[in-house]
Amino acid sequence: MSSVWGRNLKITVFGQSHAEAIGVVVDGLPAGLRIDTVELQAFLQRRAAGGAFATARKEADVPEFVSGLVDGVTCGAPVTALIRNENVRSGDYSELRDHPRPSHADYPASVRFDGANDIRGGGQFSGRLTAALCVAGGLCKQFLKTKGITIGAHIASIGNIRDKVFDPVGVTAADFLTDSFPVQDENAKAAMQELITTARNEGDSVGGTIECAAIGLPAGIGDPLFDGLENRISSIVFGIPAVKGIAFGNGFDAAELKGSENNDAYYMDGDTVRTKTNRHGGILGGISTGMPLTLKVAIKPTPSIAKEQETVELSSKSAYMLAIKGRHDPCIVPRAVPCVEAALAIALADYLV
Amino acid sequence: MSSVWGRNLKITVFGQSHAEAIGVVVDGLPAGLRIDTVELQAFLQRRAAGGAFATARKEADVPEFVSGLVDGVTCGAPVTALIRNENVRSGDYSELRDHPRPSHADYPASVRFDGANDIRGGGQFSGRLTAALCVAGGLCKQFLKTKGITIGAHIASIGNIRDKVFDPVGVTAADFLTDSFPVQDENAKAAMQELITTARNEGDSVGGTIECAAIGLPAGIGDPLFDGLENRISSIVFGIPAVKGIAFGNGFDAAELKGSENNDAYYMDGDTVRTKTNRHGGILGGISTGMPLTLKVAIKPTPSIAKEQETVELSSKSAYMLAIKGRHDPCIVPRAVPCVEAALAIALADYLV
Amino acid sequence: MSSVWGRNLKITVFGQSHAEAIGVVVDGLPAGLRIDTVELQAFLQRRAAGGAFATARKEADVPEFVSGLVDGVTCGAPVTALIRNENVRSGDYSELRDHPRPSHADYPASVRFDGANDIRGGGQFSGRLTAALCVAGGLCKQFLKTKGITIGAHIASIGNIRDKVFDPVGVTAADFLTDSFPVQDENAKAAMQELITTARNEGDSVGGTIECAAIGLPAGIGDPLFDGLENRISSIVFGIPAVKGIAFGNGFDAAELKGSENNDAYYMDGDTVRTKTNRHGGILGGISTGMPLTLKVAIKPTPSIAKEQETVELSSKSAYMLAIKGRHDPCIVPRAVPCVEAALAIALADYLV
Amino acid sequence: MSSVWGRNLKITVFGQSHAEAIGVVVDGLPAGLRIDTVELQAFLQRRAAGGAFATARKEADVPEFVSGLVDGVTCGAPVTALIRNENVRSGDYSELRDHPRPSHADYPASVRFDGANDIRGGGQFSGRLTAALCVAGGLCKQFLKTKGITIGAHIASIGNIRDKVFDPVGVTAADFLTDSFPVQDENAKAAMQELITTARNEGDSVGGTIECAAIGLPAGIGDPLFDGLENRISSIVFGIPAVKGIAFGNGFDAAELKGSENNDAYYMDGDTVRTKTNRHGGILGGISTGMPLTLKVAIKPTPSIAKEQETVELSSKSAYMLAIKGRHDPCIVPRAVPCVEAALAIALADYLV
Repeated sequence: MSSVWGRNLKITVFGQSHAEAIGVVVDGLPAGLRIDTVELQAFLQRRAAGGAFATARKEADVPEFVSGLVDGVTCGAPVTALIRNENVRSGDYSELRDHPRPSHADYPASVRFDGANDIRGGGQFSGRLTAALCVAGGLCKQFLKTKGITIGAHIASIGNIRDKVFDPVGVTAADFLTDSFPVQDENAKAAMQELITTARNEGDSVGGTIECAAIGLPAGIGDPLFDGLENRISSIVFGIPAVKGIAFGNGFDAAELKGSENNDAYYMDGDTVRTKTNRHGGILGGISTGMPLTLKVAIKPTPSIAKEQETVELSSKSAYMLAIKGRHDPCIVPRAVPCVEAALAIALADYLV
Repeated sequence: MSSVWGRNLKITVFGQSHAEAIGVVVDGLPAGLRIDTVELQAFLQRRAAGGAFATARKEADVPEFVSGLVDGVTCGAPVTALIRNENVRSGDYSELRDHPRPSHADYPASVRFDGANDIRGGGQFSGRLTAALCVAGGLCKQFLKTKGITIGAHIASIGNIRDKVFDPVGVTAADFLTDSFPVQDENAKAAMQELITTARNEGDSVGGTIECAAIGLPAGIGDPLFDGLENRISSIVFGIPAVKGIAFGNGFDAAELKGSENNDAYYMDGDTVRTKTNRHGGILGGISTGMPLTLKVAIKPTPSIAKEQETVELSSKSAYMLAIKGRHDPCIVPRAVPCVEAALAIALADYLV
Repeated sequence: MSSVWGRNLKITVFGQSHAEAIGVVVDGLPAGLRIDTVELQAFLQRRAAGGAFATARKEADVPEFVSGLVDGVTCGAPVTALIRNENVRSGDYSELRDHPRPSHADYPASVRFDGANDIRGGGQFSGRLTAALCVAGGLCKQFLKTKGITIGAHIASIGNIRDKVFDPVGVTAADFLTDSFPVQDENAKAAMQELITTARNEGDSVGGTIECAAIGLPAGIGDPLFDGLENRISSIVFGIPAVKGIAFGNGFDAAELKGSENNDAYYMDGDTVRTKTNRHGGILGGISTGMPLTLKVAIKPTPSIAKEQETVELSSKSAYMLAIKGRHDPCIVPRAVPCVEAALAIALADYLV
Repeated sequence: MSSVWGRNLKITVFGQSHAEAIGVVVDGLPAGLRIDTVELQAFLQRRAAGGAFATARKEADVPEFVSGLVDGVTCGAPVTALIRNENVRSGDYSELRDHPRPSHADYPASVRFDGANDIRGGGQFSGRLTAALCVAGGLCKQFLKTKGITIGAHIASIGNIRDKVFDPVGVTAADFLTDSFPVQDENAKAAMQELITTARNEGDSVGGTIECAAIGLPAGIGDPLFDGLENRISSIVFGIPAVKGIAFGNGFDAAELKGSENNDAYYMDGDTVRTKTNRHGGILGGISTGMPLTLKVAIKPTPSIAKEQETVELSSKSAYMLAIKGRHDPCIVPRAVPCVEAALAIALADYLV
């Protein structure tokens, strides 16, 4: 059981890749919030399939809001969004039940659910469900905007090609790209796209990292111990398939530094306490400091690859060579960018509603 | 609010560095579990202060169990452990209320709690509270042992000096060191200790990383989406002060690989499905695969350093030079090792009670 | 925020009376459970409008399952049921925003949600949402059946006319009526129906009580303190609109007895421990004893009555005489019977999944 | 598992009757709240044993606050109170493991906890734990006072002798008695005490009811559906041992009325919306209306009676005649009065912190 996340703002995500629908129930948004559906759709579009660097599955991802809104304004009842699964080819997946795909959830899910799990398209483990997460996140971004908080992200790396990082002290909303392949450095962008194209042509895939930031978050948001910002954010970010790591501020780099190199000196910026550097990523003791909140997420390469792979045949308990057919993203990273933004938006909204 | 963690096994951690006591309530352990207090104390000793590489504060950390045990056996009522704070020098911390220590929780905590937070020794943000976490974790380790599950960890790096990593496929309980400075490679160990000594002598500190593993975990433990193993484990691990990042399996390294390089091929080991490699760290889709569960945690350098630092005087809104006095760990990493084990033990027990 | 209930089995109810849809997400049912949709529909039909003693609003209440089922079998993903609101006459309710209906949620809801609450048909406070509750409850009843547990209920009273009560020791599934006006005593039934007809003709309404029982529940289910059966059951039963009281076993009658009159003597029934009487209603210390679980619920008379009533005009802060138009149940009790069964089924399933 | 209650204000109750201690962790009180320990102790004294109408066990019930307070002021860290169990006579209870006391939790607890439950003095099922509940409730009462909210209660009945009820519209803090046997009608009080004395002399016990009210609660507090005031309040009130029923407003009496008799007409009292009557008990749709919140609780007669009773010998699966020795309350109702106040205070504080 695991489809519900949140304390003050509760989201319930439902659906499977090939079910009739996926969707999300968002409970706890303040009443009276006008939803800008055009802005929401633009956000969802960033996640939706399309372009040369993603899967061939076309998903319109236009949510139908079946509850919670009256004339486009939240009424205090849970907001429920439904996205029909229309472009479903169930026939592609018939072989998978007996031959778990390496590094997919197929095998552990079959153990967990006694073989009754929905194998079609990855079932509830499909990246498809991030569309529902993005609906919730898009709503939360609009809520956060009313509080002066903006969230953005970019592809920090694909394979070993790196974009430049956000300025942890001075990042502004102007740095937040909203195209479908958000990279700040144009040279890096071209190289990343070439790497993905090569992987696709080889029937392979590549991973990458995403950097995400929230600006405008005041100091004092968060809680100690188990409900700190890092705890809460990571508990939802790992709900995005393929995420294998998360780090805040300078993260794993901090582990190589001395305290004198890693500490961020305070200074007064008028009446505001700020830090000269921001290795702490805007969080100390689980609580925001007022500096930009920054985090980095590791995305593994898509496990679905066309290349033949070794697996097992569960029924006969024997070895089996598997060639995965069907539609795959050679690189999930670009589409995961808005998902990370969504997760962060939901996590922050949970403290602020 | 944040002192409670868990779903099926709930722990409530309480206390502050200089309060009368710290402690933990553990609710949900099965009735009838005999607690080995000698084994528990040995585990707690690994976290307790001592040795040349830690703070001078001596903490006996002998918990008094005030509820939940009858003749050393759990009775189904919550197990409550109390640890008195005895070696408290409150006078050391008088200057801090007005001069927040860089990269400590002092400043955000004062905003969060309107200046009423307990500033003495870091209050509830103190690493001292990990003693309570370790009591809970030690109990959970004993519970997990009844299920055939063992957890171990080691210092993976201090600064830029690295220990060899666990064999992700073949790690066994014999690899789990239990001394106060657990490093596998003796040369690395010596170099790490020298680095810490140097930092101490310079009035500085160093960070590091910890690798942790659980073996014996059967396949099928975990849940999709928001209650996956990564979600749940990270939500508690970030409750350990100074943790800035967490990664599972090959973590951030996966982001640089191709799918064909990162995928783990399945094979039959007798009747058991296993993977030839274990880049996935024993978790796929949030659910265990039966392979060793591996994770890595980044620990920032202790922010308390003797070197003078720039901060602000909150009352006068002016710049201030701060020299932190008192007892500090030049490197918190060794003492954090059992804390990470404890957090993982609690997270796994939550699924299995 | 309040649409989510449960610990191991989580239900998320959404919708408003006049939203596009209402529905429920049920997370935590075991995978592999075959859903009997005919049986489910028959259960839902008991709640749906119809007959001479209920509202004129015709509701088909046929849920569409958009996730969680594969070929009619649970797959481990949340089961989501959607019920479209089709027979909606929004025009009926235009006057209500400014003139709160006595003893309805209109006024407190407008304060709670700053006037943005959905006033149409009672919005999220409408009894309409119990259709979603009954879907979840119907699924849970089918799950409980696999454990040998059966739940039934009947109208215990309408106004001051009482049905005979269940035999608390010997009640069996044969006692569980499934018609739309479940009363055991035919004379009482006729008198109740006459009372309702009279109330309807007078533009008035009547209240009543419902007795509910679960049989087949083994001893040892439940928890002490805050997660006892009474705690958990009441926390969901009060989610049914118009419920104003709940009592277990002989409930308020126990308060008038001596211990020697109220205690239930144990005896051995073969190898089974049973009690000769069952004033405790199958629950002691929050935990089941193996005897039938019995409870009684008080339902207030429907506040929507045709008779003119005193209220206020919020905008002008003046007195106002209100005559409520539209469709109303002169007595909600018969339709509430399956709702109480549903709530109990969900509460028990939460312990047993 | 069940020792934790709350959403925004979380309380964790621990201990058993004969453990080293009982206590409570209260997490979520606002920082900066000064605790009046004299007032708190006076509240606890109302629950503590003493007087002619209660058990002979003397309990000082002076909590030691081991965390969360700095110089008597909350600091944002969880407030932990510890009460040592000093007057323990373990020898009294040796016979009980094999011979469950009728209408006590002994038998279901032994099934639930596989015979490992702490049988001494009722273990975690003992009324003793309400001392911890009252500490939490006393703290919450002090918090609520800062919001202008006052809670009071009285013995509404013992056996069939009734006190007059609170005026549901006009009840004030002056009506809230604070003596150890709070009854408004002196004649009723004398008759109740005589009834208890008679029961005691007969080796028997008596039950009763408690009426509780909160005044000063503004309109708009609460939530729809599952987090309504009734849901939340009942979920904690049933944590008090011996409670078998709860009703809000006119409760079960409403079930006998017509809508025209039960509805509460609104009127303007200056700028304030009020109702002329208050059968709804200050709650509609789970949300406060601004009228006094009123509820009634049924307390069963203490199951511990000196009279010989039929039970079973579990080991031999045979009949057994049990005479319970030791100290018992012939009537738990007077001591339960502050417990109900405490539960209500905690439930309301959970919405308001």
